[in-house]
Amino acid sequence: MVVTRRISFSTKGRCDLIDITREVAREVASSSVNAGTVTVFITGSTAGVSTIEFEGGLLGDFEAMWQRLVPANLPYQHDRAWGDGNGYSHVRASLLGGSLTIPFVDGRLLLGTWQQIIVADFDNRARSREIVLQIMGE
Amino acid sequence: MVVTRRISFSTKGRCDLIDITREVAREVASSSVNAGTVTVFITGSTAGVSTIEFEGGLLGDFEAMWQRLVPANLPYQHDRAWGDGNGYSHVRASLLGGSLTIPFVDGRLLLGTWQQIIVADFDNRARSREIVLQIMGE
Amino acid sequence: MVVTRRISFSTKGRCDLIDITREVAREVASSSVNAGTVTVFITGSTAGVSTIEFEGGLLGDFEAMWQRLVPANLPYQHDRAWGDGNGYSHVRASLLGGSLTIPFVDGRLLLGTWQQIIVADFDNRARSREIVLQIMGE
Repeated sequence: MVVTRRISFSTKGRCDLIDITREVAREVASSSVNAGTVTVFITGSTAGVSTIEFEGGLLGDFEAMWQRLVPANLPYQHDRAWGDGNGYSHVRASLLGGSLTIPFVDGRLLLGTWQQIIVADFDNRARSREIVLQIMGE
Repeated sequence: MVVTRRISFSTKGRCDLIDITREVAREVASSSVNAGTVTVFITGSTAGVSTIEFEGGLLGDFEAMWQRLVPANLPYQHDRAWGDGNGYSHVRASLLGGSLTIPFVDGRLLLGTWQQIIVADFDNRARSREIVLQIMGE
Repeated sequence: MVVTRRISFSTKGRCDLIDITREVAREVASSSVNAGTVTVFITGSTAGVSTIEFEGGLLGDFEAMWQRLVPANLPYQHDRAWGDGNGYSHVRASLLGGSLTIPFVDGRLLLGTWQQIIVADFDNRARSREIVLQIMGE
């Protein structure tokens, strides 16, 4: 059985980290699929998905890591060619990855207590985003 | 068909890298699912999963990379707020990712010869860990 | 329903980035699975998969990031033990990850317009590569 759901929301960009755990859990619970996996996939090339303990200090630490590893203020060839100024956003997204697959049983996600699902929007401006949830199982 | 299995083990933390290939292969082979995917998912927010050639030199190189990119001895906001001292563990886990999906055919994982499945436990202390295997297919 | 397909190609190694979007889309469209997920999995331990806007500037930026984070010219324990000279290739591959799961509906991948699927071959020599596509759904 395959059920496709979408979640839409607005972001502020610039490493905006959005907790979508509740929305994913709700779509899985209401899908009538009892056990299987939900693939969380971000459409677009300047955002990624992962899990984190969604706590203010860690969100700051995660953003600080991105600023160290893929700084916004380096010169990027993408920006020279296209003038978007978001070369760093693309590079961060490609490193983090755009898909995450989470198992569930009895309609409940098998996440840890302190493990939330996040979208990281690395773009350099506010965006409307759409996440695809592919719920599969029996 | 969906089969859920769990693997439990102890780790030493501090970038302990554990080869779970044999256990995953055994659960897939004994699942009576012939072809499909196994999603390897780590419950918790201070460990991740990936693949590596499980060889002592590389394990050291992988750990050295983490110490360069997300050092244990930087100040982390998480540690200031909660005193756990494992802010770096969380950040590493979020970057590496907590899910991995591996195809199999005829009950055998389609891994390369030198490609093992690992759990990287980044926490700053010994832990009991549980991995969920969601085996799906026909 | 489970359909297994393989894509073979040659690479130049040394962070060769190959766009496989068209091949993946074609295999999904011809699989007779209407809706589900395709898991893109790289066999081997010196290459990874991700998505990127496949544009020359960004490909250069992505490669520059790898050279900053996991430089080819550091000393690696793997190279000392085995003399392959590709310790950095393994470490990059383990960080990027070897699997990617993409949803599709009506036989079409739910990718963004500027979001292509890539294989990153980090090895230090030309290689023949094989990608496994596990197409699952109904």
